[in-house]
Amino acid sequence: MRDVSIIGIGQTKVGEHWNRSLRDLAVDAILAALSDASLERAKALYVGNMLGGALSGQQHLGALIADYAGLRGIEALSIEAACASGAAAVRQGYIAVASGLLDSVIVCGVEKMTEEVGSNTTAALAMAGDAEYEVIHGPSFVSLNALLMRRYMHENGLKREDFSGFSVNAHRNAANNPNAMFQRAIKPEVFNRSRMISDPISLMDSSPIADGAAALVLVPTELARGFTDKPVRIAASAVSTDSVALHDRRDLLFLAAAYRSARDAYQQAGIGPQDIDLFELHDAFTIMSVLSLEACGYAERGKGVDLAKNGEISLDGHIPISTMGGLKARGHPVGATGVYQIVEVVQQLRGQAGENQLPDCRLGMAQNIGGTGATVITHIMETGS
Amino acid sequence: MRDVSIIGIGQTKVGEHWNRSLRDLAVDAILAALSDASLERAKALYVGNMLGGALSGQQHLGALIADYAGLRGIEALSIEAACASGAAAVRQGYIAVASGLLDSVIVCGVEKMTEEVGSNTTAALAMAGDAEYEVIHGPSFVSLNALLMRRYMHENGLKREDFSGFSVNAHRNAANNPNAMFQRAIKPEVFNRSRMISDPISLMDSSPIADGAAALVLVPTELARGFTDKPVRIAASAVSTDSVALHDRRDLLFLAAAYRSARDAYQQAGIGPQDIDLFELHDAFTIMSVLSLEACGYAERGKGVDLAKNGEISLDGHIPISTMGGLKARGHPVGATGVYQIVEVVQQLRGQAGENQLPDCRLGMAQNIGGTGATVITHIMETGS
Repeated sequence: MRDVSIIGIGQTKVGEHWNRSLRDLAVDAILAALSDASLERAKALYVGNMLGGALSGQQHLGALIADYAGLRGIEALSIEAACASGAAAVRQGYIAVASGLLDSVIVCGVEKMTEEVGSNTTAALAMAGDAEYEVIHGPSFVSLNALLMRRYMHENGLKREDFSGFSVNAHRNAANNPNAMFQRAIKPEVFNRSRMISDPISLMDSSPIADGAAALVLVPTELARGFTDKPVRIAASAVSTDSVALHDRRDLLFLAAAYRSARDAYQQAGIGPQDIDLFELHDAFTIMSVLSLEACGYAERGKGVDLAKNGEISLDGHIPISTMGGLKARGHPVGATGVYQIVEVVQQLRGQAGENQLPDCRLGMAQNIGGTGATVITHIMETGS
Repeated sequence: MRDVSIIGIGQTKVGEHWNRSLRDLAVDAILAALSDASLERAKALYVGNMLGGALSGQQHLGALIADYAGLRGIEALSIEAACASGAAAVRQGYIAVASGLLDSVIVCGVEKMTEEVGSNTTAALAMAGDAEYEVIHGPSFVSLNALLMRRYMHENGLKREDFSGFSVNAHRNAANNPNAMFQRAIKPEVFNRSRMISDPISLMDSSPIADGAAALVLVPTELARGFTDKPVRIAASAVSTDSVALHDRRDLLFLAAAYRSARDAYQQAGIGPQDIDLFELHDAFTIMSVLSLEACGYAERGKGVDLAKNGEISLDGHIPISTMGGLKARGHPVGATGVYQIVEVVQQLRGQAGENQLPDCRLGMAQNIGGTGATVITHIMETGS
């Protein structure tokens, strides 16, 4: 198995792109990544996408986007694992390059959520849950997360205001990210007064519906220096799954798949949680940040919110998260998010994170979650040697 | 890179399964394949599926099906390339095992086309075409193929009756396949009198809408003999793409991606078309059989129908196709088809094809096509040594 490195990254601004279609967004990100990699073409294109069929009436994105990106003829396909589709595509690209079969793979995560040709976005997102035993009873994807948050508050004697630090941190960091959807800081009072979406989840607990695309180029590490003097090595890639339906979980408030996926990733990289310099986690809702931090070894169970209260998740804390705004404030174009997370880790590791640059940044982790914790994919990246 | 072999196969009967849901069909095929492989669990599950979101309101099939198959926790995701989703999933499984990263992968293709929770099946299938520049003008997926057939007839001075041999061959072979949807032979007159669907494509040119699932288990060849005395080696795996929209093709009647994909596969296997003992091609419509045979080197351009007229595609011909009924008569549950094709090649190579068994069968090819030729994936399998 070959070692794999990232030599190029690209992204569109996240937001409501009324003048760009699904394929346009993907092409913008791909061309930016190829240009960043000083590469004209790659052997394959793996597209991470969840809602192209439901919202744009378009599947078969592999061949379509390859053609529109000027890459007609190359191997291309789509990969889907609900909101973890982006990292799932990265995972497949990593395996393909590691295998020795493909010397260069472009991975593109793309989502166009403001287009509602087929379904509506809320109904489409619920397809990440269990259609026959969960969604049929009426919950949206937000309300499934609300069940988790309510239970967590009950078990640990917390108020919804205890979660404000995650939202405040994400918005503060997004203010300096030109690609973020919401480039403005918020005060805790804005969170506290925020209107309720699905009690106890308020607007400010929730990542926004957004359009966007991010891309990266993978090559064998042994070839990476030929393209860039700042290659970023993939030190670990690990996937685990759990039941899709919440009611089938053995322990509602423990993300078992996140635990296993992070544990395997730490093992592959030969490190522990304390060695990670930044953690781009899946803050689709504040409760997901809390549960992820606990499952990945950063807090005891029931203590996750303390990390926000004590400032440990901020840029100068022990475990900075959402350093470019996270899903909450950079935005969450679902199938693209897993690729955005890794692109942002690469920005930090290369020293290209601008105002939000972390000092002495060597190891970054990205964790992408599908459903309410059913698919969890963890990657650890490190600066090239 | 490691050599990869197939050690287990499973399939459901193709048909209208009103009492089995999408996940049930997948689980049936997976458990059959695991049992056939004498294996209890694998490292990963790759699901090939096109229409789960559109028709069953269910995405996130990787984690969902893994859980229902008793495999909770394993790596799992979905792969989509329109009607080539099945072979695309096999391709990813092949790469993962070849990489050295995963020692066993289950690939399952599944489709539930009789369920229309979200969209209707005809509209959903059109998502294999180009939504913005092709489907927006109204064509169904059948009528896109009708354009190809009409043009082919015009260019080559043919009547629609000239295509009957493909349908007759498929139905004759399906009569002996207990898993086929239509287990009955038809006479050429049935084809000739068949009612028109989208002129010149009649009902008997068309593969049926169907439910079904097929699965296979992949392991490194070096380990295969530990599980079975009849391993089947994957001698080649190749993908190529073309424009999704027909009007963007350089040559409407030449499947360039099929040509490239087959050429690369022949090269990998170190053989030529004349060495193939059976060819499970993508006979979604009779015109696709003709164009595939021409692109893969079995007939000159414009001469594809002669192979059927001269009996060369039948079980005792030079290049037997659709040996278990093909898409036309076994049935075409779209995302499952590419896996069914390979399962049937394995049946032939193992000597388990019953009444339809080919003598001295050593090399089989399967070719799965997405859209009207935009994604083409070719695998060549050979009997284990």
